[in-house]
Amino acid sequence: MNMQPPRGTRDFMPADMIRREYIFQTVKKVFEQFGFDPLETPAFESWELLSKKGVGGDEVKDEIYYFKDKSDRELGLRFDLTASLARVIASNPQLPKPFKRYQIGRVWRYDRPQAGRFREFWQADVDVVGSSQMDADVECLAAAVKALESLGFKNFIIRLNNRKILDSLIKASGIRKNEFDVFRSLDKLEKIGEADVVKELVSKGVSKKECDSLLNMMEIKGSPEDVLKRGRKLCKSEGFDELEQMVSLSKQYGIDKYIVIDFSLVRGLDYYTGPIFEVFVKEFANLGSITAGGRYDNLVKNYGGRDTPATGISLGIERIYEIMESRNMFKLPKTVTDVFVVAVSDDVRKDVIKITSKLRAAGVKSELDLNNRNFKKQLEYADALGINYVLIIGEKELKSKKFPLKDMKKRAQKEMDLDDVIKKLS
Amino acid sequence: MNMQPPRGTRDFMPADMIRREYIFQTVKKVFEQFGFDPLETPAFESWELLSKKGVGGDEVKDEIYYFKDKSDRELGLRFDLTASLARVIASNPQLPKPFKRYQIGRVWRYDRPQAGRFREFWQADVDVVGSSQMDADVECLAAAVKALESLGFKNFIIRLNNRKILDSLIKASGIRKNEFDVFRSLDKLEKIGEADVVKELVSKGVSKKECDSLLNMMEIKGSPEDVLKRGRKLCKSEGFDELEQMVSLSKQYGIDKYIVIDFSLVRGLDYYTGPIFEVFVKEFANLGSITAGGRYDNLVKNYGGRDTPATGISLGIERIYEIMESRNMFKLPKTVTDVFVVAVSDDVRKDVIKITSKLRAAGVKSELDLNNRNFKKQLEYADALGINYVLIIGEKELKSKKFPLKDMKKRAQKEMDLDDVIKKLS
Repeated sequence: MNMQPPRGTRDFMPADMIRREYIFQTVKKVFEQFGFDPLETPAFESWELLSKKGVGGDEVKDEIYYFKDKSDRELGLRFDLTASLARVIASNPQLPKPFKRYQIGRVWRYDRPQAGRFREFWQADVDVVGSSQMDADVECLAAAVKALESLGFKNFIIRLNNRKILDSLIKASGIRKNEFDVFRSLDKLEKIGEADVVKELVSKGVSKKECDSLLNMMEIKGSPEDVLKRGRKLCKSEGFDELEQMVSLSKQYGIDKYIVIDFSLVRGLDYYTGPIFEVFVKEFANLGSITAGGRYDNLVKNYGGRDTPATGISLGIERIYEIMESRNMFKLPKTVTDVFVVAVSDDVRKDVIKITSKLRAAGVKSELDLNNRNFKKQLEYADALGINYVLIIGEKELKSKKFPLKDMKKRAQKEMDLDDVIKKLS
Repeated sequence: MNMQPPRGTRDFMPADMIRREYIFQTVKKVFEQFGFDPLETPAFESWELLSKKGVGGDEVKDEIYYFKDKSDRELGLRFDLTASLARVIASNPQLPKPFKRYQIGRVWRYDRPQAGRFREFWQADVDVVGSSQMDADVECLAAAVKALESLGFKNFIIRLNNRKILDSLIKASGIRKNEFDVFRSLDKLEKIGEADVVKELVSKGVSKKECDSLLNMMEIKGSPEDVLKRGRKLCKSEGFDELEQMVSLSKQYGIDKYIVIDFSLVRGLDYYTGPIFEVFVKEFANLGSITAGGRYDNLVKNYGGRDTPATGISLGIERIYEIMESRNMFKLPKTVTDVFVVAVSDDVRKDVIKITSKLRAAGVKSELDLNNRNFKKQLEYADALGINYVLIIGEKELKSKKFPLKDMKKRAQKEMDLDDVIKKLS
């Protein structure tokens, strides 16, 4: 039998999980500081929901794990956390608005597995549902940036664009095709290059001249103010005002220094209706964005809910993990255990259990021998696990109530009573 | 479109999730105090793994959500966390033993949904892999009991039995049938009653006399010492010694007072080989066990791994939640947010963002208006969300640097500077 996890999925061993848990807990803490509340939804949703037009886009739809339950209900594993959120909002119109929630969890896409891409991967999302103000977009962006800062990241690029501006640019360049078709081609700019994008657009009926015009417009570079000013000369769109407001609000949050307005940013999903954004770590910009999102004002309505504006952002945990790992940003032990309590002889095993129980009750993460091993083997095990300290219990120590606490890295030990052990390790 | 979550699954709104997170974090903390390390495995596994004989038992097999991926790989959603653990152990023989891990996560079973039963539900497991000593079994039991104590539970019943004793009792009563067939019938004792179990056993070829003999043996009641003594008279089994050791070790852990030895305890899964156990909350014993487990020494080998003894226990999160809810054991707010920072007028909105950012950076969970609402509407929103405090920012307050902090429950307010607000709320 094949003992590996299914293709595209992974087992996370303790040393990995301790790092991943560190990411989850750090991100969660920042999200809660921003007043986002936790929400949880099922791992699978009805196929009708997941495959609805204008939600995942045709590309994602092909990547959904589809199945039927034993009553022939059509289901699929969730491919993101946003579709489920929109369903929750549509079915709970009584919720006070804005509804601010975070959700950290796994999603699944049947993708060709490649370096850093998996079929089961984790996302950490914040969304604000029920505000059409740009304040909501910047709140999400700021929460994401602060979460990344808390993890130790420093230099960011926030790429900002607006679907409304993209619409207007497309029209201003003379293109009269379906904008989503155009978006899907433009979204491949970085992946396949300008020449191939033009080829694809031409095959969709866009003229070479229209392509050139559009791509020229998308290449404007400069300070946010400059880019907006030049953009306004090319076409009319309230998207410019929205981005201007976002830049202004970003100053109060202290994240304006990272903002770059880039009309070539498109984002893959169909449901975006306003501002769209991606966050890059400067030194790792070649790895792509580690956080992305945007405004999706029609999604809840599309699901049959009330007309409810919404915006949100998603942190890609796998890429964050990968960068942190490669930069040696984790300063974490291989095991959660603080101390291994060693029994010098069989006679003291009962006392070892009692002492270990005391340490645990005081919050010290403690292990003891469960295999009836001798002194030397117990030390070897503690060492193999990477436990930092061992506490040595023998008959002599039980009498004097002074126990040697050995630092396994420094290979040094010091005698102390139990209260001092607890003080030192908790 | 049906906006409800798929049948048997649930959405967890913030107030629920805050409670569930409290359970997860409390349980996790205790598991780590016991030196269990975190492990994570995929949500789905190969069908071959999940459906292997002697693993889930035929009953569970029918409840697995089965599907194929786009390369026709046969897969299934995991129905517990143990099969995946055994796979990880089999494929990582280099791991130091014992391998102690906890895993908290969702599992799926296509069950008839009923009160307190769901198709998507959460388990929290600890297992010790690589020790044949009873120390490992008691370590797991103690971790589970301490986790329940940390959640506020007080009076437990730990039902203890041993598959080896059950085997011997079956043979001693003259039954020569497959023991797993007998187990499956006996496991229904509480559900369908003695008469129907006898009927079922008779239909499997067991004589009425053999049934009566077996069921009589299983009815022995008394102190652990008495029950073991009477059991030893009925048949020979090293299972008695094992339980005796467990009772003795339990004393050091302080959990012996809860132990009841009960030869009628069977447990549903085929893979148990030694001690089996269930934990009940005394006042809610009618709801069934909230925690259960046992020793499964052959599982890793059955998966093609090395011969590796193992034991573990699983906390049923849904039943724990249900009991805690019905007993009003949660003392938790409806929202994570500590304070809502109110802008008295539009002129101070920029300052409100700055002040809120300061509070957040200091660890105070803070919200601000994202909807351009007036003073009154902001207060109404904070109230609707159940936020305990509002901090009021106006031009006057910005000048004096004294801000009214209003306690929304007591309807009282007090002026203070920002540092005092941080001190009070963080």
